[in-house]
Amino acid sequence: MPVSIADVAQCAGVSRTTVSHVLSGNRPVSEEVANRVRAAMTELGYVPSRTARNLARGSTQTVGLLVPDISNSFFADLAKGVEAACIENGFNVLLCNTGWNREREVFYLETLRSRAVDGVLYASGATPAASTLAELLAGLPVVAVDEALPGVTVSSVSSDNRQGGRAAAEHLLSLGHRSAAVIGVNSELASSAERLDGFQRQWKKATGQRAMVIEGSFDEDSGARAARDLIPAIRAREVTAIFATNDLNALGAMTILREAGIGVPHECSVIGFDDFIAARHAFPPLTTIRQDATLMGTKAAQALLTQLSGEGARRHTVLPVELVVRSSTAESPSAQ
Amino acid sequence: MPVSIADVAQCAGVSRTTVSHVLSGNRPVSEEVANRVRAAMTELGYVPSRTARNLARGSTQTVGLLVPDISNSFFADLAKGVEAACIENGFNVLLCNTGWNREREVFYLETLRSRAVDGVLYASGATPAASTLAELLAGLPVVAVDEALPGVTVSSVSSDNRQGGRAAAEHLLSLGHRSAAVIGVNSELASSAERLDGFQRQWKKATGQRAMVIEGSFDEDSGARAARDLIPAIRAREVTAIFATNDLNALGAMTILREAGIGVPHECSVIGFDDFIAARHAFPPLTTIRQDATLMGTKAAQALLTQLSGEGARRHTVLPVELVVRSSTAESPSAQ
Repeated sequence: MPVSIADVAQCAGVSRTTVSHVLSGNRPVSEEVANRVRAAMTELGYVPSRTARNLARGSTQTVGLLVPDISNSFFADLAKGVEAACIENGFNVLLCNTGWNREREVFYLETLRSRAVDGVLYASGATPAASTLAELLAGLPVVAVDEALPGVTVSSVSSDNRQGGRAAAEHLLSLGHRSAAVIGVNSELASSAERLDGFQRQWKKATGQRAMVIEGSFDEDSGARAARDLIPAIRAREVTAIFATNDLNALGAMTILREAGIGVPHECSVIGFDDFIAARHAFPPLTTIRQDATLMGTKAAQALLTQLSGEGARRHTVLPVELVVRSSTAESPSAQ
Repeated sequence: MPVSIADVAQCAGVSRTTVSHVLSGNRPVSEEVANRVRAAMTELGYVPSRTARNLARGSTQTVGLLVPDISNSFFADLAKGVEAACIENGFNVLLCNTGWNREREVFYLETLRSRAVDGVLYASGATPAASTLAELLAGLPVVAVDEALPGVTVSSVSSDNRQGGRAAAEHLLSLGHRSAAVIGVNSELASSAERLDGFQRQWKKATGQRAMVIEGSFDEDSGARAARDLIPAIRAREVTAIFATNDLNALGAMTILREAGIGVPHECSVIGFDDFIAARHAFPPLTTIRQDATLMGTKAAQALLTQLSGEGARRHTVLPVELVVRSSTAESPSAQ
């Protein structure tokens, strides 16, 4: 059993309330009594509970982090940045893994509210409806990470997804590609929709038409399914390049193309988005749009902590992305 | 401002203490008064604070998770398993990323103690000295995950690292290899030391001698450095196989071997440990010892929660590992 305030009070011969006042410093206590209380604490080995102290202050020094899938390295890197920035400022991070599930997001937001977290870093995967979200977040400081939150106005931090999509298109166009497919598209996610939009605008501008779109999600299976659907078109040279909305989709697609005997990049170029660790080790090493998830986590945590300290208005931070050219993209077979 | 107990008390025309009693159910309150308090709560939209409620119960319904590096997919998968098992039982997870740093581990254990977490899941990376650790953990329910904790007796969950090392040796021996190097060895980590030990026992039994050992850590650079050192020996066929103590080391080594023009597997076989996502996408696809980090996290959380519920003695759970043969291992060039 840990030593309680009651133990200290008994040992010092004072009331619990007096011990509390010595701890909190909120009410004056005579020096003689305060010394007696401190001596009793030392004698008993009393450790003030930060939980109790914070509760009295109206702060739990805790931030909730919602991510759709911590085992996806993008979100793991994000969590690393969040955690480092929080702990540096005396805040701990409650990890909430929502599994791309709307009900779980609602459940976690309710949980975080009942735990009186000071704020929430919300990397959503399946955002609740705008009205529900507004209710769940009412009065709770929130920073939207990597995704928009419909119906609520909060600070946000994300990568320049549109610029990333544009850079992917420019790269493929510069290699002579004129017919591409965008895979793993989930138009409910801003990150996915913006990557597609950036790509399509550039593609249309250069070729006069839009690229083919295959819907999916941010996982490997989505890329594998899309590639299976694309095999006939690739064989017919109706599609010579694939822009995958994330690296997992790209790797899933490359596996299927290899199994089908379709050479990447010479029969079909593949470009991803993320630059997670498997990208540079993949076969062939993956050309991709690099985003810095750890930095995004750091920036998001800093934005929330600034908000908590009462400084600064809402901010929208957009982080740069970068084309990394490796060996999964090459000149279009149709251009040769 | 959230609605407080004081607001409810004023609205219902009762004392704060009475509101607390209605909330906690610890003291009898007349039905008439209780109804008035509940009506006031509904009217004001009062949400009981779980933090306050838990504090009164002596539980924060919180578990601390210490990992050396959340951006390493092994620990991200582990965190996923931990989080799922905890939330299923009404516990939240405080994420602590220690950066393989001893001072940070001490700092986090002190932080978790002052936050009155109910227990700790401790995947250590640079464990403090036995005496310090015993003091830091005194009275705190702990489960050691993936690593031993010197000087303290706690429940533990880990993979069968010795069996993994043995299986790696058996596989290489069956391919005719007789001279191998074990890389990325950190003898301060039980996981690393046990993988080495399992490998060496089997190797000695079959060849009469021990394999070469190159010390390092669980990252890619460690594998790259080791491979650079090994190039002359590989060219001289004094080493024909590498057992990397984790996949990151294996991938780091394969990159350097490829750059040096050494063919994997035909000039040098490489086998890893983990089977993280980049292993199957690597070039060549990596033969490895698969461990299930998510299951390890689930089992560890369950062990801790069982302990918290007052059931069950300390347990040591060892999870099976599995050899996954891909294309980075082949017959020894010396055996051909």
